[in-house]
Amino acid sequence: MSLLLDAIRTEGRVADGLLKVDRFLNHRVDPEVLAEVGEGIGAIVGDWDADLLLTAEASGIAPALATSLATGLPSIYAKKFVGPGKRRSFGREVSSPTKGFEYRVEVARHLIEPGQRVAVVDDFLSGGRTAVALVEIAREAGAEVVGGAFVVEKAWMPGRGRMEAIGCTARSLVTVASIEHGEVVFADA
Amino acid sequence: MSLLLDAIRTEGRVADGLLKVDRFLNHRVDPEVLAEVGEGIGAIVGDWDADLLLTAEASGIAPALATSLATGLPSIYAKKFVGPGKRRSFGREVSSPTKGFEYRVEVARHLIEPGQRVAVVDDFLSGGRTAVALVEIAREAGAEVVGGAFVVEKAWMPGRGRMEAIGCTARSLVTVASIEHGEVVFADA
Repeated sequence: MSLLLDAIRTEGRVADGLLKVDRFLNHRVDPEVLAEVGEGIGAIVGDWDADLLLTAEASGIAPALATSLATGLPSIYAKKFVGPGKRRSFGREVSSPTKGFEYRVEVARHLIEPGQRVAVVDDFLSGGRTAVALVEIAREAGAEVVGGAFVVEKAWMPGRGRMEAIGCTARSLVTVASIEHGEVVFADA
Repeated sequence: MSLLLDAIRTEGRVADGLLKVDRFLNHRVDPEVLAEVGEGIGAIVGDWDADLLLTAEASGIAPALATSLATGLPSIYAKKFVGPGKRRSFGREVSSPTKGFEYRVEVARHLIEPGQRVAVVDDFLSGGRTAVALVEIAREAGAEVVGGAFVVEKAWMPGRGRMEAIGCTARSLVTVASIEHGEVVFADA
């Protein structure tokens, strides 16, 4: 993950205690970094023998689709919105600590088939709320969740623990151990 | 565009007079169709000598990123939300006839550089409101908009006229002439 690490080091910004990747991953997207992310997550979901990727709009779409293009696996991105649930959808409420409101993630029922091997994909594993909601949606649809694959994991946040608590393994391309004095400290550095 | 045409014919659905592509393009994403879309839009923006792609979340992200991966050009996806504008952003209000409310599209100011050759990319050219907002944002940033490239154009809608009215050319991979009795009629068929 050399391009991704370099991008986080040189173009990542720490603002309000959060790592911002909007210069290369979730607002502006760098094609070389994205291709590397697709290969990296592709290797993880290949290990799991996944046959479907599940993410949520909007910031999960880039890593999921890059993985789809690298592996040939289809992706589903859950719709995210504020308001009541729709008929004919699998959905969950998610509270967002950074945005301060509840929203819903939903997947149309006709898109997930029972028995599919679903890998959850997202840009960040942090609080884990969106990832847990996606796992629950896939399981409600009768799919088998083979794991969650993430671009960046924040090791001090409860995301991994929340995934493990519902019996779901997690792997990440890069793990940030901490943010100290506005600087990113990598777990492997 | 044989895979895209086949997908629209076999997996597209007409509901409430709208063409739904949620089985292969904007909810579930088929990697083979997406790769073809990236190559097709890549050829268009290559003709224009674009150096940056600009789209809006969420449904524009898939075609824009596929084009980025096919061409090596970076993409920016504008953030879409309801509420007041943010500082340090270029933004526009957009009214959505299908969703019935106004929302904002915004791009952080530091991401577009004056003089860049920007191609607007989106899944549909229909009413054209989002595309026009993106053109205005890019121009406000001092960029040169070289055109709008779309996956599917609805020929009976005012999108193309609205783009031309602000001096912006438009090209589409597939043009739907009409929807008659719940069936899609292609312009070239």
